[in-house]
Amino acid sequence: MISVKEAIETLLEGSQRLVEPESVELMTATGRTLATDLVSPIHVPPADNSAMDGYALRFADWRGAEVELSLSQRITAGSVPSKLEPGTAARIFTGAEVPQGADTVVMQENCEGSDSGVRILKMPAEGANIRPRGQDVKKGQTVMRAGQRLRPQEVGLAASLGFAKVSVYRRLKVAVLSTGDELVDPGTEAGPGQIYNSNRYTMNAQLAAWGFEVVDLGVARDDIEEVKALMLEAAGQADVIVTSGGVSVGEEDHVKAVVASLGAIGLWRIAVKPGKPFAFGHVGGTPFLGLPGNPVSVFTTLLVIARSYLFACQGTEDRGLHAVPRKALFSKKKTWREDYIRVRSTDQGVEPYPNQSSGALFSTSWADGLVRQANDAEICEGDLVDYLPFAIFS
Amino acid sequence: MISVKEAIETLLEGSQRLVEPESVELMTATGRTLATDLVSPIHVPPADNSAMDGYALRFADWRGAEVELSLSQRITAGSVPSKLEPGTAARIFTGAEVPQGADTVVMQENCEGSDSGVRILKMPAEGANIRPRGQDVKKGQTVMRAGQRLRPQEVGLAASLGFAKVSVYRRLKVAVLSTGDELVDPGTEAGPGQIYNSNRYTMNAQLAAWGFEVVDLGVARDDIEEVKALMLEAAGQADVIVTSGGVSVGEEDHVKAVVASLGAIGLWRIAVKPGKPFAFGHVGGTPFLGLPGNPVSVFTTLLVIARSYLFACQGTEDRGLHAVPRKALFSKKKTWREDYIRVRSTDQGVEPYPNQSSGALFSTSWADGLVRQANDAEICEGDLVDYLPFAIFS
Repeated sequence: MISVKEAIETLLEGSQRLVEPESVELMTATGRTLATDLVSPIHVPPADNSAMDGYALRFADWRGAEVELSLSQRITAGSVPSKLEPGTAARIFTGAEVPQGADTVVMQENCEGSDSGVRILKMPAEGANIRPRGQDVKKGQTVMRAGQRLRPQEVGLAASLGFAKVSVYRRLKVAVLSTGDELVDPGTEAGPGQIYNSNRYTMNAQLAAWGFEVVDLGVARDDIEEVKALMLEAAGQADVIVTSGGVSVGEEDHVKAVVASLGAIGLWRIAVKPGKPFAFGHVGGTPFLGLPGNPVSVFTTLLVIARSYLFACQGTEDRGLHAVPRKALFSKKKTWREDYIRVRSTDQGVEPYPNQSSGALFSTSWADGLVRQANDAEICEGDLVDYLPFAIFS
Repeated sequence: MISVKEAIETLLEGSQRLVEPESVELMTATGRTLATDLVSPIHVPPADNSAMDGYALRFADWRGAEVELSLSQRITAGSVPSKLEPGTAARIFTGAEVPQGADTVVMQENCEGSDSGVRILKMPAEGANIRPRGQDVKKGQTVMRAGQRLRPQEVGLAASLGFAKVSVYRRLKVAVLSTGDELVDPGTEAGPGQIYNSNRYTMNAQLAAWGFEVVDLGVARDDIEEVKALMLEAAGQADVIVTSGGVSVGEEDHVKAVVASLGAIGLWRIAVKPGKPFAFGHVGGTPFLGLPGNPVSVFTTLLVIARSYLFACQGTEDRGLHAVPRKALFSKKKTWREDYIRVRSTDQGVEPYPNQSSGALFSTSWADGLVRQANDAEICEGDLVDYLPFAIFS
């Protein structure tokens, strides 16, 4: 038995980035992982500009509310100002460049303007209402790091620096295979002894949501030749292979024999619930992750264990999963395994789904996150526990 | 001035679902909004099945560890069992259907098996290791509701019930337009007085990340005819129009005049920072949201204000945004506006980006969430504050 932490560490030690950079249009880059640091080629803003609609002037030129300054120019956002003539003011709008010679902008609400001049009724401090050049980002500043996954705001930020394309790692190709004679595809009739294959869908949907390119290989029957053919196909097409089922100690599990014959396999018993059996190896050099067969175990091990490894293969920097302390609305005895309990968050705390069986997939839909119960740690109602909202696994 | 809460309430009162249902392949349904309740047509599991690899038998037939029970059948997952002959045991594997007549499964670790028979060394309680039919989901049970947004686990759950397609609302079409003479597209040269258009990218990326179909109309110059032509195009193509800039009281803002002439517009001053000016109206019946022009204001109002409205138009049920109480590692004076502070989470608490200017887009990339400072509420270092991780806006 190894702990979840040891399992993840071992996986990460054996991991490397498996994808090369490619250039993509910035507009399509959300969710992609940056392949190079992004260094700003410009100052943002590029020049001092006005934070207000109002009047730009030289602070020293003000002679009191009763004296009108003549208007020497009108500067809109996007236009190029002339140098400010001494003793005059410029009409100026938000975002417009402050003219050379001006050092202060007065907001229009504190002025009395006419066509020819303006009276400043209330003078702000010298330098007011001007956003200095380079205030947001300085030329040469590293604003993003290789390995960073781009969110919408990073797309906006890269645009503000003038990038129309960015270098990102190509999407990791993940082959997905579920195994089992009892599985039938949804949309068909399930006969006696058969169940619908949910693992294929859970894995496809989750891996695609993480931005990977899924190579869907469907289902392998419990037949050694079929499993072998599909494993070779997976290794030929994908960067990583993920399977569900076929890695426990049961006689009918062919996956481990096939992977062992085509490469190498380690069978782990991870001290985790749900999800105990887990396999890690390779098929002719292509990394292989063998998830358990139970639907909830597939979902949980994908999130808790496989995710870190797959992101490492994608070249994505791991920012870690920060649990949120929440109050438990339940008690639970200690167990020797680390337990990931499906819970729902309320204003009072977190409550568990009544049926925590690893077959009860509905629990993952009912829930909005997991509570991590450390091994050998009892949970008493009212305790603060480690709550992991599903959103943090995105 | 209206509060953020009032603004959202007014938007939601004026909202309705703008999209009709369509049927899509389940495999592509992640992120889509369910258009009908999903009622299970089957029991899950469909029959009692084994939770273990082991032996199925009748509890009453056990005669002690020394007496061997003969093996009457072998049941693998996916195969159809015969009725269990009295006084015998069946070899059974995880997920396989428990034969009629058997009431208990003994895990193989507690047995001593041969080709012909098995000794039960340790007998569990009657009924052990059997997952009863319908344990996860009962036939006729409503497992998902119309308006629910599908996550990977819902895709898996729908598959487990046999659905190959689901009815979802078609994607909301959102037209995006940014305005301003000073804006140039990234990838070109920014001349004097010009800045790169980040709002177009932030809006496109965020709206696409939410699953909307973005109709990108680019930039409108500060020209009333151009703005008018683009607004009419937007109204013709999209369900909702979102613009940035052009809604404050400056003279150069044509958006509000155009929208007023083509439909109706309300100009709001929302007591929020960043993001004060905000417009809501319609262009010939197509709803219009006018965001402010500053990059951080665009990002924040999208998340905090526009998101709820757009999801309502998409028919998506609002699950609310649950702030997480975190310790403030900073102090901040009270203000009359609700302030959304860009912060980064650490083990000790949350710390703010030093430059909270609404022009400093880098702050949104540096940060991993927002702290909501209520109006007229001071923040003292060490206080618990409302932290909104960006992930919850997904």
